[in-house]
Amino acid sequence: MTVTLKDVAMLAGVSVKTVSNVVNGYAFVKPENRRRVEEALAATGYRPNIGARNLRRGRTGFLALMVPELSIPYFGELAGLVITAAQKRGWSVLIEQTQGTRERERETLSSLGPHLVDGALVHPEALEAADFPSDPGGIPLVMLGEHAVDVPFDHVAIDNVLAARTAVSHLASLGRTRIAAIGRNPARGTSSQRLAGYRSALSEAGLSYSDALVAPAEKWHRSVGAAAMKSLLALDSPPDGVFCFNDLLAVGALRAVAELGLRVPDDVAIVGFDNNEESAFSLPSLTTIAPDKTALAEAAVDLVHRRITGDTTSPPQDIQTPFALEIRESTRGGR
Amino acid sequence: MTVTLKDVAMLAGVSVKTVSNVVNGYAFVKPENRRRVEEALAATGYRPNIGARNLRRGRTGFLALMVPELSIPYFGELAGLVITAAQKRGWSVLIEQTQGTRERERETLSSLGPHLVDGALVHPEALEAADFPSDPGGIPLVMLGEHAVDVPFDHVAIDNVLAARTAVSHLASLGRTRIAAIGRNPARGTSSQRLAGYRSALSEAGLSYSDALVAPAEKWHRSVGAAAMKSLLALDSPPDGVFCFNDLLAVGALRAVAELGLRVPDDVAIVGFDNNEESAFSLPSLTTIAPDKTALAEAAVDLVHRRITGDTTSPPQDIQTPFALEIRESTRGGR
Repeated sequence: MTVTLKDVAMLAGVSVKTVSNVVNGYAFVKPENRRRVEEALAATGYRPNIGARNLRRGRTGFLALMVPELSIPYFGELAGLVITAAQKRGWSVLIEQTQGTRERERETLSSLGPHLVDGALVHPEALEAADFPSDPGGIPLVMLGEHAVDVPFDHVAIDNVLAARTAVSHLASLGRTRIAAIGRNPARGTSSQRLAGYRSALSEAGLSYSDALVAPAEKWHRSVGAAAMKSLLALDSPPDGVFCFNDLLAVGALRAVAELGLRVPDDVAIVGFDNNEESAFSLPSLTTIAPDKTALAEAAVDLVHRRITGDTTSPPQDIQTPFALEIRESTRGGR
Repeated sequence: MTVTLKDVAMLAGVSVKTVSNVVNGYAFVKPENRRRVEEALAATGYRPNIGARNLRRGRTGFLALMVPELSIPYFGELAGLVITAAQKRGWSVLIEQTQGTRERERETLSSLGPHLVDGALVHPEALEAADFPSDPGGIPLVMLGEHAVDVPFDHVAIDNVLAARTAVSHLASLGRTRIAAIGRNPARGTSSQRLAGYRSALSEAGLSYSDALVAPAEKWHRSVGAAAMKSLLALDSPPDGVFCFNDLLAVGALRAVAELGLRVPDDVAIVGFDNNEESAFSLPSLTTIAPDKTALAEAAVDLVHRRITGDTTSPPQDIQTPFALEIRESTRGGR
């Protein structure tokens, strides 16, 4: 037997309109009513007829999510959270992978349109402002993550400069004085932000900046982190602390230190970025910047939902989601 | 300027029909012609007008991919490879996450239909045969991975029994005599297959099977592997070898051994399953079963493509893709 909105409303003791507001994800429902509706929805097993609903509204029922590579744990985790958040609003998620190249990012952007999706969440790595049409595909677009381009779209990210500064200040607070960075890549906005945070923390701690201690990394992969760490440790004055621009680079660095017979954190303390689940289990476990990925996914889906449901005039929002420094074995003790 | 099929054909020195066959992914094109067309496609930057093409053919241009969780590296990697393989045929991929529960898997299956997608790749964990309609949504369906259900659909997987037997025989060949397993879960088809391979290798090596050495794991996550390993090491006769049903469990097990002050592989050798990239960088690096994930993704997309483009009558295919035993530090040396 099909459960209707009316059945749910009767069980919850609220109006059909209130049930409809909850099901459609509108924000302004009294918390008590929302709770009762959610319980009644669960108890009755109500499922909206999404196909029919989308048809009525002239929607596709799809959101696009553009990411570099799903095999990178940060993006696998983020995509999973976006799918979960979108599902609550009745959307399915179409995933496009760009490998982080400007060409593929531009292609993906230009392929979007209202025949395909109702809105798009876009995590660019190499796009430049000129690559953005003023009205991309005629659909709302939310930018995810840090980027160097100044474009008039909604945007959700953590404060990457502050997060990087927090990571490097932590290393300085441990008495490390030759602090290196791994991950410089001029083509990536995120890299510039994290480099800025690194420099600002060094200067705050009275440490001088040296180009020799900043290792480039075209791809932020484990193997690249291992190779970069080996180069740094081969310097005449090797670093005693390293800030890696993501956890994959840091896991590679951990491995390189061990292969050279050195110890983390005794010889070199290491901090990563992303808080991949892997980092809590590596040996040693990895101190890292932990962005609140759930908050980021939910804020992005909320924003695109608001635009799709009618707010087409308010200025672009810039939402900062929180992060924390997760201190683990790779910087604890030692010396 | 828009590049047409004719431009590509002229440059490649073949007919427009041949270019069209390559672009549309038909199998029977002479290798030499295929090579010339692919070079000409790359040189001209030809891009098919996918929207118009789908409209002509009555297609949506979407494939659905159903997986438990994208944050599990195996599924993140597999989804990335499926998206890449599908893109070559002009499909975008819609990803549905089920958390591996029977209810969500059943819901996802029943929500599919030709208004939504042209076909679906389905990786079930808990579905039973009765959950499958005879003609699910009227679209072709390809099953991925091992499952215990006997349903008449195309299917791509590695030989899980043989792969598990290979892993456990490797441990036995190192002289390990108390070989444990982590990952038993009666609700998961994959688990029964791997358990069968484990038992068969034990018996082949003349080792007796003991229930006490088989640790259950509802979720195959790192934390579960760590807890299971601690229980096994607390036994009166702890194991000297452990076969984990996936790499996440194995990474958790590595961590638990280190926390107890024991050594891998000296005290206990460990083998995982999946060859997540993480396993090549863990300390020690992890011996693991490496399924050819690219072959699996491509075979699945090929199968669904064949069904969508007209082969609706040939009997369900069962394709086995290859795997290898990747021997690394967690079983090398020691003793």
